[in-house]
Amino acid sequence: MYAAPVQKLIDELGRLPGVGPKSAQRLAFHLLVVPKEEAERLARAITEMKERVAFCSRCFNVSEAPECEFCTDTRRDPQVICVVEEPHDVVAIEKTREFRGRYHVLQGAISPIEGIGPDQLKVRELVARLEPEEITEVILCTNPNIEGEATAMYLGRLLKPLGVKVTRIASGLPVGGDLDYADELTLGRALEGRREVEAP
Amino acid sequence: MYAAPVQKLIDELGRLPGVGPKSAQRLAFHLLVVPKEEAERLARAITEMKERVAFCSRCFNVSEAPECEFCTDTRRDPQVICVVEEPHDVVAIEKTREFRGRYHVLQGAISPIEGIGPDQLKVRELVARLEPEEITEVILCTNPNIEGEATAMYLGRLLKPLGVKVTRIASGLPVGGDLDYADELTLGRALEGRREVEAP
Repeated sequence: MYAAPVQKLIDELGRLPGVGPKSAQRLAFHLLVVPKEEAERLARAITEMKERVAFCSRCFNVSEAPECEFCTDTRRDPQVICVVEEPHDVVAIEKTREFRGRYHVLQGAISPIEGIGPDQLKVRELVARLEPEEITEVILCTNPNIEGEATAMYLGRLLKPLGVKVTRIASGLPVGGDLDYADELTLGRALEGRREVEAP
Repeated sequence: MYAAPVQKLIDELGRLPGVGPKSAQRLAFHLLVVPKEEAERLARAITEMKERVAFCSRCFNVSEAPECEFCTDTRRDPQVICVVEEPHDVVAIEKTREFRGRYHVLQGAISPIEGIGPDQLKVRELVARLEPEEITEVILCTNPNIEGEATAMYLGRLLKPLGVKVTRIASGLPVGGDLDYADELTLGRALEGRREVEAP
């Protein structure tokens, strides 16, 4: 019922994750109303990103070069790998300035409901890095939710027998938080992961 | 923190209505992962729509030509205008096959909260059509919600003094509906708008 180019755009927008038929229609009509330059800017941003950005061939982080800035930075510890789910997790960790090793981006987490198993993730590629790069520690930095925990558990069982040190980031109370507002699970984890106070 | 082309795309996606920073990020990374052809198809669909589709200069419906298919169709009654909010309302009305006049798309509804008044809508353009097109009836077909009702009320007050017949689509029970499940407002409107049963 719509002019063909409009229907085409509605169909393409409807393919995006979390965009249903109604939202696709709304977005298409929005793009129809905005000045031509604004719509063009979006189209060009998509094209340019696909042309210029891909994934690091080593760690699968977002990268404009064949290998990303972290993998090529010789000042970083090449023997410690921090395993994360998505490229934006790398950004979050970099902001802490606490980590000076390298990364491995799984590009997802194990989720049987969505049909995502280890084969859909960059797990094989992680295992293949251990020996040639002489990795001494793998830090499992997946999200502390069901999928992330399942992924960490799976990777722990897979990597431990290969003779590498495997660690998991701590769960506990967020800094600035309040005991009173913490859920039982988090408070339980905080107790379980307690550490001895060091002498000053 | 992201490669520049990725950040650019996140920014552009974030401008779309209903797309917050987190969704923009998710959409951008989705487009990063999909095959290049798929992302290109979306970019091309945007460009092509902006190049080929605009609004009818008379009724402001979506159109590939300067005037839309309804305004140029000589078999349609040129003296009756159905006023709707959005182009997709035209599609909904056409599906009924009950209307053979022309349209006028306001491109929105009056909404003080969103800062949309008559000046932001195609109201002036509607008034300008009445005399040269010798309009005899204007059917107010805006949505039966707060914004649509306010718009219909405003247009009624504006157009009646100009000597044109102004009608409003009926509110009432949806066909196939159930008295028991109808809200009071709808049932009240259905009673108020009752019609005499015609002799067979």
